Amino acid sequence: MKITVAPSAGFCFGVKRAINLAIDSASKFDTELNTLGPIIHNPQVVSQLKEKKIFPVDTIDEIKSDKVIIRSHGIKADIENKILQKNIAIIDATCPFVKRSQEYIRKAFLEGYFIIMVGDDKHPEVQSVISFADSSRYKVVNKLEELNKIKFDEKIALISQTTQDTNFYLSIICEVFKKTSKEIIVFNTICDATKLKQEEAAFLSSKSDIMIVVGGYNSANTNKLKNICRKIQNNTYHIETEEELKQEWFIGAENIGITAGASTPDWIIEKVVGKIQSFDIL
Amino acid sequence: MKITVAPSAGFCFGVKRAINLAIDSASKFDTELNTLGPIIHNPQVVSQLKEKKIFPVDTIDEIKSDKVIIRSHGIKADIENKILQKNIAIIDATCPFVKRSQEYIRKAFLEGYFIIMVGDDKHPEVQSVISFADSSRYKVVNKLEELNKIKFDEKIALISQTTQDTNFYLSIICEVFKKTSKEIIVFNTICDATKLKQEEAAFLSSKSDIMIVVGGYNSANTNKLKNICRKIQNNTYHIETEEELKQEWFIGAENIGITAGASTPDWIIEKVVGKIQSFDIL
Repeated sequence: MKITVAPSAGFCFGVKRAINLAIDSASKFDTELNTLGPIIHNPQVVSQLKEKKIFPVDTIDEIKSDKVIIRSHGIKADIENKILQKNIAIIDATCPFVKRSQEYIRKAFLEGYFIIMVGDDKHPEVQSVISFADSSRYKVVNKLEELNKIKFDEKIALISQTTQDTNFYLSIICEVFKKTSKEIIVFNTICDATKLKQEEAAFLSSKSDIMIVVGGYNSANTNKLKNICRKIQNNTYHIETEEELKQEWFIGAENIGITAGASTPDWIIEKVVGKIQSFDIL
Repeated sequence: MKITVAPSAGFCFGVKRAINLAIDSASKFDTELNTLGPIIHNPQVVSQLKEKKIFPVDTIDEIKSDKVIIRSHGIKADIENKILQKNIAIIDATCPFVKRSQEYIRKAFLEGYFIIMVGDDKHPEVQSVISFADSSRYKVVNKLEELNKIKFDEKIALISQTTQDTNFYLSIICEVFKKTSKEIIVFNTICDATKLKQEEAAFLSSKSDIMIVVGGYNSANTNKLKNICRKIQNNTYHIETEEELKQEWFIGAENIGITAGASTPDWIIEKVVGKIQSFDIL
């Protein structure tokens, strides 16, 4: 049995930066700190941070000190204003790629574009980014059919969630070009790490008898990876930790591919590899 | 025999505006006027304007009065500067859509994007638009393979000639998305009239036994129309005037489709229709 871990599996730049910023702040201020929402979409990492006195809270009122860590997905424009009004300092761990998307949306909104954001409207990144435009001036779409609800009678700006599947975004772009003869601006805001991970995952799926995708069930980029792998390799399993692995999945498999979402720490990936190796010995 | 002229055939908004501006200026100033290059890509229109004392010249030194008409395709940034330095006033008949492209290029250049312009590098519009960036910061491409010459190691802005074929532009966009994981901005600068004309031409080609495309041989948008029609209907002929029509083309044809480039005046289209009708009577 040969196990191959995708070279780009695991933490991306933005996640590393967010966790380091949180840990540095906790040691610097030597006080209990809060993140508004889980800092990244990985329950195991959130648990580890609790040991360092960093606790997620859901609302501004629950913030315990005079500072708060903004998680990697960013926050809504109005929440940011409320925090500042309460004289709470912001330790900004927003992913720089998400920040860039916020700037694009703000600019496109001010320049009069109607904005189509391709992503999951329930995802905190999308909610944060889109809040930088007025709610009457955008539509979040996650399916091709949803474009039918849009009147294409004004100029359009297209933007994507950083963890979007590139091919799906391209299919939306093509459809929008067909539907309007008005001006269009397309921002490709899918981040480097996401695209690289997706390409590696697709390649690895085509070479493997079984694909294991490791990452939080609430992680958008992990779920996208799972979908990409499953299209190519039916035997694709999404797990959060090594405990969920089942030996029977691996019967007769020679090549095992492993990839992991941007919020999955190396130590979880290592445990997954170790457990699969132990199946091989048995 | 049924003759159908595409509803959008002929003069577009930018061309109408340019010709009206030239004629108005000639009557207002009651003097011989020059356009820098032919005002639009239609030799018959250029000839008619000569009767109104509007003559094209190729260089600044040939300009005869203290004012010059800038043609619909626009001019290069450095030529504009030279004209102003010579205290020659500019009567600007640049198409507003071309103006918008110039602004986009300037902005993208200043924001550090490497620019890929999809179009014909010999076309005056492309030469005018692209001159608003530094020559080391762009590449004009007209074929998919030409993308191979570009290093995709920096952020990219994509822009198209206003008369570009939409599907070709989309194929370039998809290829660029595949080749880079860096930031991309796509400007859709294909103008309304061009896109509508192309859609109508494709539809008409599928319903006709023969397609006649009327327009200057040096007109980019007319040549694009010819290519679009020929892909669908082998019996596609590109002519400049009715004199080029040959009766044998129409033998056995029941449905005749006619379209015309943005620089083709109505009176030429009408003469083409009249000539084809006369074939039917014979």
